[in-house]
Amino acid sequence: MIRIADRIKLLGTETAFAVSAEAAAFAAKGNKVYPFHIGDINISTPSTVVEGTIKAIKDGKTGYCPTAGIPQLREAIAANVNASHGTQYQMENVAVQPGGTPTIGKFLLALMNPGDEVLYPNPGYPIYESQIEFNGGVAVPYTYSEGETNFVFDIDAIRQKITPRTRLLILNDLQNPSGAECSAEDLEELAALAIKHNLLVLSDEAYFEIRYEGKSRSIASIPGMQERTVLLYSFSKKFSMAGWRLGATIGPKEIIDVVAKLNVNDESCTNHFIQYGAVAGLTGDQTEAKNIVSVLKERRDAAAAILNTIPGVRCFRPNATFYLFPNVTGLMQNKGYSDYEAFRKDVLHTIGVSFCTRAHFGRPLPGEKDRYIRIAYAGIGLAELEEGLNQLKLFAEQEKLVATLS
Amino acid sequence: MIRIADRIKLLGTETAFAVSAEAAAFAAKGNKVYPFHIGDINISTPSTVVEGTIKAIKDGKTGYCPTAGIPQLREAIAANVNASHGTQYQMENVAVQPGGTPTIGKFLLALMNPGDEVLYPNPGYPIYESQIEFNGGVAVPYTYSEGETNFVFDIDAIRQKITPRTRLLILNDLQNPSGAECSAEDLEELAALAIKHNLLVLSDEAYFEIRYEGKSRSIASIPGMQERTVLLYSFSKKFSMAGWRLGATIGPKEIIDVVAKLNVNDESCTNHFIQYGAVAGLTGDQTEAKNIVSVLKERRDAAAAILNTIPGVRCFRPNATFYLFPNVTGLMQNKGYSDYEAFRKDVLHTIGVSFCTRAHFGRPLPGEKDRYIRIAYAGIGLAELEEGLNQLKLFAEQEKLVATLS
Repeated sequence: MIRIADRIKLLGTETAFAVSAEAAAFAAKGNKVYPFHIGDINISTPSTVVEGTIKAIKDGKTGYCPTAGIPQLREAIAANVNASHGTQYQMENVAVQPGGTPTIGKFLLALMNPGDEVLYPNPGYPIYESQIEFNGGVAVPYTYSEGETNFVFDIDAIRQKITPRTRLLILNDLQNPSGAECSAEDLEELAALAIKHNLLVLSDEAYFEIRYEGKSRSIASIPGMQERTVLLYSFSKKFSMAGWRLGATIGPKEIIDVVAKLNVNDESCTNHFIQYGAVAGLTGDQTEAKNIVSVLKERRDAAAAILNTIPGVRCFRPNATFYLFPNVTGLMQNKGYSDYEAFRKDVLHTIGVSFCTRAHFGRPLPGEKDRYIRIAYAGIGLAELEEGLNQLKLFAEQEKLVATLS
Repeated sequence: MIRIADRIKLLGTETAFAVSAEAAAFAAKGNKVYPFHIGDINISTPSTVVEGTIKAIKDGKTGYCPTAGIPQLREAIAANVNASHGTQYQMENVAVQPGGTPTIGKFLLALMNPGDEVLYPNPGYPIYESQIEFNGGVAVPYTYSEGETNFVFDIDAIRQKITPRTRLLILNDLQNPSGAECSAEDLEELAALAIKHNLLVLSDEAYFEIRYEGKSRSIASIPGMQERTVLLYSFSKKFSMAGWRLGATIGPKEIIDVVAKLNVNDESCTNHFIQYGAVAGLTGDQTEAKNIVSVLKERRDAAAAILNTIPGVRCFRPNATFYLFPNVTGLMQNKGYSDYEAFRKDVLHTIGVSFCTRAHFGRPLPGEKDRYIRIAYAGIGLAELEEGLNQLKLFAEQEKLVATLS
């Protein structure tokens, strides 16, 4: 009786939510679970944001607000980005969104015609691939490979994938899941390619402030790029606000006007009072925000150290994001697994260690041989993190022992 | 350089936002504005909701939650609807949304193929028309006409508009902007038509609880309709929560699963902690929610009474919604206006009375002769409301005097 629309066949999803559900079900049976699957921070949101939000509720900021956001927040976000990017954004370049994710679909709806080719990272946040295909585009994956100290971006591979139908490029520098980061030269060359081929760029900068060493760079900072870049800005990571749902689309006014028109149609507006909390967070004391990064750094160091002692595991220690993306090819071989999901489920149900695998980050590419899992360390405290990864080590060693004995 | 996607040409908007902006600009110059254009309530959100939300923030409900919402809220909404509708919804039939509006686009994306015909009310909330056309459907308007005590629904007109391509019907009973309401017989006949022609129905019930006399009815309550109806449920009106952005899509599990998959792609999830506030609101004391309706009723009575004393104005006093939709054909004629926008702007800039007109509620239909404006009385206190409408009366009488003298 119910006929679902044909387009829904093209819609992908974030299969990581199923991992959360499985972990929760396993925990509900009384089992200990080590949550390395969560892209969410178990550290409090800064009190500036909390107090600013509660004050705004009590001040009655509970009715509709402008679709593109309250002017104070649009201005504060523009100032925040200009300070780190050296850009010249103004209020008119900012459309407040209910989270980081909404920018992806709206960027594509605003700028992609059916049949347009869109370059996107794979492995990467799976919603890129899903939204490109759902909205009639051609999803053209580019990938990262293992370098000496981190995953590396291959500008030549990107160059070869550009065709006359390529219109858009999605860049998630400081990348989920790999932690990869473009070099300054990579970004320059990518910008030159974008300008040469008249590509518009979505720069997903969700992890821009989650950085432990060095300084984050944005492609929008390169001359000629502010005019052709749309930034995905999110409060979810920097202020540990994933469940608050607040972010922004930032870019040329011509695009932002279209994005805001899409917002009128899709959401009316973003939550009103939380926007005041975000202004307080951006303009107030940054001690707590900095503390989030310090806590995460300690976890990163501990996790990478343990992972690199596990037989059959090789792991970089990236300078940004809160993910590790260890190569587990040896471990899976040692244990006799060729299937990601079988491996993941067995580890969860044997030792309670829960993680996503490469398979949760876009369709695997032809010829992929190495195997990877994603260890997210934002949602698990240091002691548990060490305990969980040591369990994984024990599990790996025991299996190896069994394999040797048999 | 920037090429906006072709589909954006099909995207409409809610032009009422421009009215708000004009009113704000006029007020910013030091002028008194009487805000009758606002679909937003200037009464506090119940303290149960406020306190439940603040508690949840402090309890750390600030990370991601399930895409379809926290189980407690999904269950509370199902129970709330079942109590008023006599339906048998369960948690699985509810997908929490960031507002009421998101249900419209998601209903159409989930169920409408390009070229499908969708019946929708016009005048009506303009996003129906916009989203149908943006997503490739054929928007087929049906309208309401003036009856004896309220606008009436014309079931025969609907019947004549059904073709083999008609798949969906949007019903906004307790209607914005007209305040129209189907009789029990209308609803029965409409249900019979939907079943006969295998139509799926979106029942926009944003104003279900904003009722002053009698009892609200839902088409989903009619046998055979729960299986083919999707409810747009919103907290915006019943708890004065427009700026909080919270609502739900309710319907057959098969549809709700698709809607939730769209949510993963578009928003990840809805704000986490506000969902606890909404549970507190639904399960706690209802005194403040009832008070919202009492205050609005007093305004309705005062507004309708004054409007009916204005020369050239005829106004119903509907039992629900917080809108009046007076026929101002005579007034506009007396004052020499044929254009809605010229009339609206002149009234704003002469006496500060701000309202939307019929032109803000979908493309005018061929052959429309009568003229209507929408008087929203949710965002203006009683004293100001009376003052503003008496200004309008004076304005109407003065013009008439001038016309008589000249």
